[in-house]
Amino acid sequence: MPPTTDEQREIDALRAVQAPTRRLTVPDLEDVLYQALPVLDHGFVRVVDYMGSDSAVVQAARVSYGAGTKRARQDAGLIRYLMRHAHTTPFEMCEIKYHVKLPIFVARQWIRHRTASVNEYSARYSILDNEFYVPDPAHLAAQSTSNRQGRGDVLSGDEASRVFDLLRTDARQAYAHYEEMLNEDVHGNLRDESRQGLARELARMNLTLNFYTQWYWKVNLHNLLHFLWLRSDAHAQYEIRAYATVMLDTVRRWAPLTYAAFMDYRVGGANLSAKGLQVVRRRLRGESVSRRDVGMSPAEWRELNALLDAEEPPSTSP
Amino acid sequence: MPPTTDEQREIDALRAVQAPTRRLTVPDLEDVLYQALPVLDHGFVRVVDYMGSDSAVVQAARVSYGAGTKRARQDAGLIRYLMRHAHTTPFEMCEIKYHVKLPIFVARQWIRHRTASVNEYSARYSILDNEFYVPDPAHLAAQSTSNRQGRGDVLSGDEASRVFDLLRTDARQAYAHYEEMLNEDVHGNLRDESRQGLARELARMNLTLNFYTQWYWKVNLHNLLHFLWLRSDAHAQYEIRAYATVMLDTVRRWAPLTYAAFMDYRVGGANLSAKGLQVVRRRLRGESVSRRDVGMSPAEWRELNALLDAEEPPSTSP
Amino acid sequence: MPPTTDEQREIDALRAVQAPTRRLTVPDLEDVLYQALPVLDHGFVRVVDYMGSDSAVVQAARVSYGAGTKRARQDAGLIRYLMRHAHTTPFEMCEIKYHVKLPIFVARQWIRHRTASVNEYSARYSILDNEFYVPDPAHLAAQSTSNRQGRGDVLSGDEASRVFDLLRTDARQAYAHYEEMLNEDVHGNLRDESRQGLARELARMNLTLNFYTQWYWKVNLHNLLHFLWLRSDAHAQYEIRAYATVMLDTVRRWAPLTYAAFMDYRVGGANLSAKGLQVVRRRLRGESVSRRDVGMSPAEWRELNALLDAEEPPSTSP
Amino acid sequence: MPPTTDEQREIDALRAVQAPTRRLTVPDLEDVLYQALPVLDHGFVRVVDYMGSDSAVVQAARVSYGAGTKRARQDAGLIRYLMRHAHTTPFEMCEIKYHVKLPIFVARQWIRHRTASVNEYSARYSILDNEFYVPDPAHLAAQSTSNRQGRGDVLSGDEASRVFDLLRTDARQAYAHYEEMLNEDVHGNLRDESRQGLARELARMNLTLNFYTQWYWKVNLHNLLHFLWLRSDAHAQYEIRAYATVMLDTVRRWAPLTYAAFMDYRVGGANLSAKGLQVVRRRLRGESVSRRDVGMSPAEWRELNALLDAEEPPSTSP
Repeated sequence: MPPTTDEQREIDALRAVQAPTRRLTVPDLEDVLYQALPVLDHGFVRVVDYMGSDSAVVQAARVSYGAGTKRARQDAGLIRYLMRHAHTTPFEMCEIKYHVKLPIFVARQWIRHRTASVNEYSARYSILDNEFYVPDPAHLAAQSTSNRQGRGDVLSGDEASRVFDLLRTDARQAYAHYEEMLNEDVHGNLRDESRQGLARELARMNLTLNFYTQWYWKVNLHNLLHFLWLRSDAHAQYEIRAYATVMLDTVRRWAPLTYAAFMDYRVGGANLSAKGLQVVRRRLRGESVSRRDVGMSPAEWRELNALLDAEEPPSTSP
Repeated sequence: MPPTTDEQREIDALRAVQAPTRRLTVPDLEDVLYQALPVLDHGFVRVVDYMGSDSAVVQAARVSYGAGTKRARQDAGLIRYLMRHAHTTPFEMCEIKYHVKLPIFVARQWIRHRTASVNEYSARYSILDNEFYVPDPAHLAAQSTSNRQGRGDVLSGDEASRVFDLLRTDARQAYAHYEEMLNEDVHGNLRDESRQGLARELARMNLTLNFYTQWYWKVNLHNLLHFLWLRSDAHAQYEIRAYATVMLDTVRRWAPLTYAAFMDYRVGGANLSAKGLQVVRRRLRGESVSRRDVGMSPAEWRELNALLDAEEPPSTSP
Repeated sequence: MPPTTDEQREIDALRAVQAPTRRLTVPDLEDVLYQALPVLDHGFVRVVDYMGSDSAVVQAARVSYGAGTKRARQDAGLIRYLMRHAHTTPFEMCEIKYHVKLPIFVARQWIRHRTASVNEYSARYSILDNEFYVPDPAHLAAQSTSNRQGRGDVLSGDEASRVFDLLRTDARQAYAHYEEMLNEDVHGNLRDESRQGLARELARMNLTLNFYTQWYWKVNLHNLLHFLWLRSDAHAQYEIRAYATVMLDTVRRWAPLTYAAFMDYRVGGANLSAKGLQVVRRRLRGESVSRRDVGMSPAEWRELNALLDAEEPPSTSP
Repeated sequence: MPPTTDEQREIDALRAVQAPTRRLTVPDLEDVLYQALPVLDHGFVRVVDYMGSDSAVVQAARVSYGAGTKRARQDAGLIRYLMRHAHTTPFEMCEIKYHVKLPIFVARQWIRHRTASVNEYSARYSILDNEFYVPDPAHLAAQSTSNRQGRGDVLSGDEASRVFDLLRTDARQAYAHYEEMLNEDVHGNLRDESRQGLARELARMNLTLNFYTQWYWKVNLHNLLHFLWLRSDAHAQYEIRAYATVMLDTVRRWAPLTYAAFMDYRVGGANLSAKGLQVVRRRLRGESVSRRDVGMSPAEWRELNALLDAEEPPSTSP
């Protein structure tokens, strides 16, 4: 959903102002600064501030490795080296702040990542907007029959219609009763002078988990990459993955060398166990290896073979 | 709500087993170990493990202060000294783990405290129980007219009846539709063979914020006290305060000297600003001081006078 | 110690470049950006990057409190309110990065604060400079006779001369032997072709704790204020206090409203226990109260009376 | 170095006491509880408390996955699954506390891991013992010629003798002057009545980085494994690796299923990049792949081939 006219006016006003700074600047990220990048049906991600970039990673690593590295190593090589060898602290030297609008059930998954700073819109103090998430028909998935924590086929026909109907009707009714209990609407207009109105901190409990909330979320580059690695993964719930995908693209703008190394080593890479390594080594030497030879479980054996037999490598940055 | 028969049987079985240990033990806390201490209408707090006690605080402080302190200072005095001078690291040497059942809107406040470890029941994977919170009539408060983030009088009569009716009806309907969309009940019984059932990770979004969830929550004593200081405060929402109150009593059992110091310095104490100190000093010297003399805001001035004029000190531990 | 000519040239080059940004900028802090602010005999603090300022605190608080607060409250009042009521998360929305050169024994105290990101110059990889700290005569203090963790009078005469002599001689000898064991100097020049040279990661163990190291240290405003509150306190060791004092002045430039609130509530303020409050209340009502009436220890009673009888309030921001 | 008679008596006294507890106990770990496990020439690691074990990991995971998993999965399989899929929070449910005696330069590496609680012996308050680390002849390594952050051959002959002599002489002299400046010995005996003695917080700066310090270090199982993964690695400095090796064995006693999964997936496993995966897949299909085909750097290519060509897999737990 595009921002309202008022919101867009505020964003345009912020974007119109520029000031000189001695700090490192990243023009590619400034290009989208403050803009509401749309996610799901009413959500967005906005980059509202940042600090550092690839060169801040390199600078921090060179303090810790000494000036001698300056000559020999190119920045990209150093960043790849740091990523490969889990030297993570230099990536902490960059910081980014997002303003995010997201359904409450997504916020609950997101907040499990504790290594960030958060300020959320308070429904103790204010009244939430009448906006709730309903999946796009393409994402109205059935429960997976093979994986208890996953999705199967997309629902269709009468079953899909009924689900859409229930989700919309229940959310609308929950909000209508929220306003009724509050005895005021979102603009603070009183409804019935004879009533006191339930405390906001209590009335909110009647809302369903697909209502939208919003927050400022500030995180360093290392912790952001860890979040994105987990939440852009195919096993993550689609709704939070939609946010991770948009944010991953802001990392590409912000710190392109780090992004490329991350796509190669983390997103496109894989971890092999000692047993998995043994299988690979023996196969490369021309031996045939069975699951029992290495003592793997059937699930692990399937995962390993799926990984090794994949025809096309996962796409990485060019 | 008391545990079900099955749950109580599991708790009794856990409590029946004892084993010898060389570790520090705290009999007063063992007395309630594993028990479900009731909170709100369906919630509970259970202490499921602990490590350390007052003497672990003292032992850690004495490593950092040297063996010489052992003679001169009693343990209680040392703990009071540590608390008074914000030497907080020795309190980190104790750890406790709770199992908590709580409404989702309370869980959302609670989880803002990031310095703990959490494992929550997964509604991606499992089906939530049909249990939701409805306030006791004594806590069905109106919105405060003086404080936007607070409660006023208790609602009564028709307005109260209507609120109870809305909260119960909407929660029941949300759960009924949750089951219908899932196409199975909480025991995994299929409802309609012709339908696939919506994925659990999606269906949960139809539940309201007063449904109960549960988690394991593990925290060190320092961070626990900070949590309890904020959440047992009169400004905290009643529902989370109800949990803090029960947990505070487990601290009293677990580390009584620390508890007593905490009640004196944090819960019963107060912070004076430089301006506030100036007011106190001048009044004690017999001068009269006005708000403008020290440049306080009206709100601050009111708060200061309320603090200084209180007849009875906040109750502290004996 | 002023930077070397080469270092100053690098700093000047960084300072000469400005670029436009849409981000919030703080001209008062840009004025000192990259400059080496001297501390102790060879140390410095350099602000090398920052993100946010007072208005980022306010913006984050208003997300969490809702747009309604915009009309009624001035920014300064809101910041004072947040500081007074321990609403600390909005202060986490600002971030600053320092480059610091400091003696190793100071670094060891500093690093106890875990809520920051650090990259330190690596003596496994590189060779440390021949620079060590020797106190100024005004800070060559005797052990306190009343406080085991403190300083007493300044040493003078022969005892002082002997201490200076020992500190300098031992440090010089340690460094000479460090170079000898390495078999190379700080520029990598080989000394004796017939020897292999001890590994750097081992040779460093011969250096004394007053040698200088350096690091990048990045922290949010909330955690920085906590660090400065503890480390600018009269009980902190003078050498780390010297750093805290210089950094406190960078906070004044960076976020002046937050700085003023911090000086009033934290630096100039004090915490009263429940017992202390009881003493104040009873004295203000004209009663006389004895130590035994409230059950305070002699040390606490002394501290309380020193606090209440102070003629002049601690200086605060104007 | 074995503990002194007095220390051993204290340890024996602690070990002699047993008390009943309802908590989970781990007899294999109780067997070594409080014992000083020797490391380096004067150091030790002592397990002084613990909470949880493998079954606490499983219990926490089952809250987050729901009761349904109880039937189908064995504990070992679940723990392997959690480790393989980076579901790390259940491992946070176990906690351990160590008392460690270690050289200061090792402490400085160790403390970079910020996710633990630490209380260190205070040299502001107390006087350090006269104990310093000197490498065993087998570990007196030359600087590596191929890797700036590493060790090469072991030094021998005159060069080795000279290094031992310098390390010992400088440390002894530093300590003698430390006592002289303090004007007292470690037992607090005054040396010269005519002098005041330098403050302890200053005198300590004359000690070299190989002097021993000690601390309590408390950490959860997840963060401990991360520490051990980095510090038991062949790239870690030998001296900290010596501690990691001893601690790894305490994990084997404490949580054997987690230990086995950790050895297979982390210690014995390896991460392949997207490029590395592509090489493996193509080779397994019988294609020959060159470094340039996948755009790897020479260093990465060497590392990959060393990994894939290793004859013997890294040893893992049986």
